[in-house]
Parts: sequence; structure tokens; C-alpha cells
Amino acid sequence: MEPGTVRIAVDLLGGDEAPDVVVDGALRAFGADPDLCFLLVGPAEVADELIAALPSAERDRVAARPVRDAVTVSGHSAAIVRSENTIQAAVAAVREGTADAVVSAGATGATVTAAVLGFGRWPGVRRPALVATLPALGGPVVLLDVGGSLEARPATLARHAVLGAAFAAVTHEVRRPRVGLLSIGTESGKGDRTRRAADPALAGQALPADARYVGLVEGYDVAFGSRADVVVTDGFTGNILLKGIEGAYAMAGGPPAGGGAPRAAVLLGVAGAVVVCHGAARDDDVASGIALAAHLHRRRTIPAMSALLADSTVTGRAPDREVPA
Amino acid sequence: MEPGTVRIAVDLLGGDEAPDVVVDGALRAFGADPDLCFLLVGPAEVADELIAALPSAERDRVAARPVRDAVTVSGHSAAIVRSENTIQAAVAAVREGTADAVVSAGATGATVTAAVLGFGRWPGVRRPALVATLPALGGPVVLLDVGGSLEARPATLARHAVLGAAFAAVTHEVRRPRVGLLSIGTESGKGDRTRRAADPALAGQALPADARYVGLVEGYDVAFGSRADVVVTDGFTGNILLKGIEGAYAMAGGPPAGGGAPRAAVLLGVAGAVVVCHGAARDDDVASGIALAAHLHRRRTIPAMSALLADSTVTGRAPDREVPA
Repeated sequence: MEPGTVRIAVDLLGGDEAPDVVVDGALRAFGADPDLCFLLVGPAEVADELIAALPSAERDRVAARPVRDAVTVSGHSAAIVRSENTIQAAVAAVREGTADAVVSAGATGATVTAAVLGFGRWPGVRRPALVATLPALGGPVVLLDVGGSLEARPATLARHAVLGAAFAAVTHEVRRPRVGLLSIGTESGKGDRTRRAADPALAGQALPADARYVGLVEGYDVAFGSRADVVVTDGFTGNILLKGIEGAYAMAGGPPAGGGAPRAAVLLGVAGAVVVCHGAARDDDVASGIALAAHLHRRRTIPAMSALLADSTVTGRAPDREVPA
Repeated sequence: MEPGTVRIAVDLLGGDEAPDVVVDGALRAFGADPDLCFLLVGPAEVADELIAALPSAERDRVAARPVRDAVTVSGHSAAIVRSENTIQAAVAAVREGTADAVVSAGATGATVTAAVLGFGRWPGVRRPALVATLPALGGPVVLLDVGGSLEARPATLARHAVLGAAFAAVTHEVRRPRVGLLSIGTESGKGDRTRRAADPALAGQALPADARYVGLVEGYDVAFGSRADVVVTDGFTGNILLKGIEGAYAMAGGPPAGGGAPRAAVLLGVAGAVVVCHGAARDDDVASGIALAAHLHRRRTIPAMSALLADSTVTGRAPDREVPA
């Protein structure tokens, strides 16, 4: 566990099984990381229940921000006060400096909207992307988008390439990341109309962190790795692929030794740290989402990416320099 | 092994590693099935090499149709006679009655075109679909399209639902197949514009074999099963998902006990039996593609599906009857 105090704004009402799995997941993460603090965003009675489950000496690591309304439909959303929902409140807490990162298993669309409105977008980003990291044979494979937006345009895919390369360099310390475009074959020209237009767009796109475009890759390469460190696709295809790999590991009797398909993803393109958990998150998924958010803050991922991309987003070109240490 | 003589037209020049893996795969399939006969379509010297590897008593099970030109680029395609290529010749052999089914690991687009021109399409089918069967927890999951065509339109997806339901009933004896539409969530309204338009189109589509539409399913459901017997998607997404599941099984150390992701698919929508193997097929993939083609012929899959769909393709409605035994 990396050291350093980090305050996570936890959306107590996000997810199909909220608040129970969120409470259980938060307790699990809390026990595993002594420098972790929580801002619990949701109904006061849920926050109180979580706090009551902690040893009294640890309770000063937890604060609450009472909000009664959730974006997702649940028993708790039949609330009195509807002026602010939990994900908006969690984003606001980070913006105001009372928390460092947001974790939610709520509806992705609502989270993206709240993050865009609350944090603002990085220059050049029309719509943020969700990025997931899969453990593969030759190291991590960064896949994006896995559901941040659904419409695929060549310019959006080229932007994903920039974001993914910066993320691989900053978060996973990949040197000279290899960026591939997901398609149905590896020869140039394979794929639908969008991919055929995106292939030359990515080839001509300046990339940060000394990344290079390696052309088309296939679904096999995302799970097994070896051909690319960063795989770019639209959020529809990426989400389906990620969940398909997850299902295959379940069929195979469990994930491989290096870890399975992640059930938490990072939102890229907004000026704040946001982790989105699978809507059907279990408590261990919420715990790993919280750990991922803590890691993002401790590694200063979002400001480091923002600095790395500053030149490229203004000029449309990436800087020819290494990732800042 | 099912009994019954079956004659497979084997495209000796299809696939990245042709003709070597095709020869090795054909020999493997030949040894496993005593009722299997081959029509070897390709260069005479390659056919002769395969025949020479057989015991002399078995050689009458093999015939050759010399063709020098392959669709795919290979050493063998620098040929003299270019009037007819191997996949066209294999289709012609079935059409003329000298073979029962075609197996090729060549370029999918060329195979689809040759099959459409040689066999003709079923009424109501604009573009044939490739269907793959994945072993899952609750029984086989039929996935289509996995690369027959790439452009997704709601009407095409509705037609895939009809073809997939008939295939599940005829080939896998699934009673009342449950048909799902692949998307990024299971609640109605989830997905891109195409899926949002296709969801009501599938709900209103009459289906053969007493099948029923169960709504949206996710990538997880294709690998793990349990939610649907037939999963409908466009050929781009389906191909990426299928290869992603294959990669996950490779990462997990091998396929589950019931079998992994198939590397051979059946072309649906043309009036002839065609099996398309993975372009990167290994010899065992070619052998399993040949076994699949033999199974199709012995089960009379194509004529049975054609009969089942005859009413629905003419009237736009499916018959209210069970699959013929």
C-alpha cells in the first residue's frame, strides 16, 4: 500500500445493490489502508451505520455529507430533499477541496455529466472516456473507452489515443506506449467505416509520452496482450468486450494469476479524479474502486496527465518529451 | 461421430498458413471420421501431397479439383490460371452436387461473396451472417453476426434474430430459444442509437421455433450464458467479442471443460453449407471446421432452416410451429 493520506468521496447510493455493498466495500477498503479517509455522501443513517461499524479510535478518519437523493432507482431514492444528488455532491466535495477523489457505482451517464459540470473538461475533450486496465501477458493493457460515451467518430478515437497513451505512461509507467485501434483484423483496411477512417487519423495523431501508433489490433490482443499497451475503441464496443472477458474468466473458473477484468474504471478528460465502478458491483469491486481512486490521487495522475497533455490539447500536437517523473 | 457419408469441399489455399495447416487439419479430420470424404480444391501438387499421406486403401475417399488461384495472398497465388479461385470452385462443386459442404479459412468477404453468387440468398436476407456457438454454463450460446457483414441496421439485427433462433433450434435442439440483443446494460434504452432502435424492432419481430425475445444482454452473458440462447449483434462487435473471449481463455491457461471460443463459424443466409475458419487457423481449427461442416450436412441444417424460415421470409412472419424433428 502506498503511503499518504487520501480522502475519498464515496457515493453511498450508487449501484444496483446500494447502499449495502457500498458500505461493505468501503469498510473493506478502510481496513486495508490505514491512510484512507472517507467523505460519505448519502443518507445520514447509512453513513452512521458505516461509522458505527468502525473502532471508535478510527472514526475521525470518516466524515459525512448528508444527501438523500440518488440518481439510480432504489428504496433510498424516495427521498424528501431532491435538490442535490449524491454524485453531484461527491463531485462538489472534491471541487471544494474537502475530498480528493470520487468513487461511484451509480449510473455512468449521470456520473459523467456531474463530473463534466463540476470539474470541467480538459481542452480538446468533447466527451470524457472511461479507461480500464486489464492485466495481460506482457504487462497491463489500457482499454478505452469502456462506456463513457457511445458514439464513435474518428476524431474521438484519435483523442482516446492521446488520453490512453498519457494514462499508460503516468499510471502504469509504460515507456513508449504502443497504441492500437481495435478492429476485426490486423491488416490496414479491416473494419467498419469508422475504423477505416480512424486508422489514418490515429496514424497522423501526435501522441504524448513518446507513444507510437501500431495499427489495428483484435479482441484477442486486449485479453492476452503483447501487441499493444493501449487499445482504443468506442465505448459501446469496449464495454461489451470488457464484460465478455469478465464472463470468460468466470466460465474458466476464475481470473488468471495476474488478475481478471477490472470492474472499476477511471474517467479521463475531466479535471478531477473519478472512479466508476460496475453498476452490479460487489463489495470487493467497490473496495478495489476505492483503492484505485486512492492510487490515482497518490500518483497525482490527473494533474500529471493534465500537464502532459497541456501542449497537445492547445496545439493539437503532443510534446516530444518523456513523462515527468 | 455421427454416421453417414459426407463430402467436404476443402479450400486448400484459404488461411494465413495455407496450404500447410489446411493439409494437416484435413488429415486430422479424415482420420477421426471414417465416413468423411474430401474434394480437395486447390493446386494439384498440394492435393497429391495430402493423398500420398493416406493409406492406399483410403484414397478413394478423396478427390481433387485442381485450381491454382487463391483469394488470399500466398506463394501459391502467383498462379497461371486465374479464371477461377479456390473458394468459388469449392462453392461450385457443392452447387453441382459433387460435394456437400464447403470449408475455407480464407478471406471472409471473398467467401461470403462466392457463396452469395454461387448458392443465392434465402428470401429476405440482404447479407448473410456468420454464426458461432460458444459453450456456456447453461448450454450453448449462439452468437451472430461474428463478421459476415459489418454495418448494423435494426432491420439486419432483427433478421439475425430470426436466423439465430432457427439455427439454435435446428442445430442445438434448443426448445423455445431465448433471443437477446447485445448491448451495454440490460435495462431497455441502454446502448447506442442502433441498439435503441433495434430493441423495439426485435420485440416486434415474429421468430421461428417458438423463440422469444428477452431484451438486452451484455458481453458477460455471451461467455457465461444463462440469460439468452441466441445473442444478436453486428458483425464488428461480435467478431471483437468472440476474439476477446478467446484471448481470455488463453490468459486463463486454457478453455473451460465444455470447450472454448470456436474458431469456425457457419454462414447463414445462403442456400448451401459453408463453414468459415479463423484466418489464423491452426490444423486443429481446420479439423474442427471440417467436423462442423460434416455435422451441418448430416443434420440437414441448411434445408431444415430453409424450410423453417420459408413462411416467415415470404410473409415477414414466422410460423407458429415447432422445429421439424
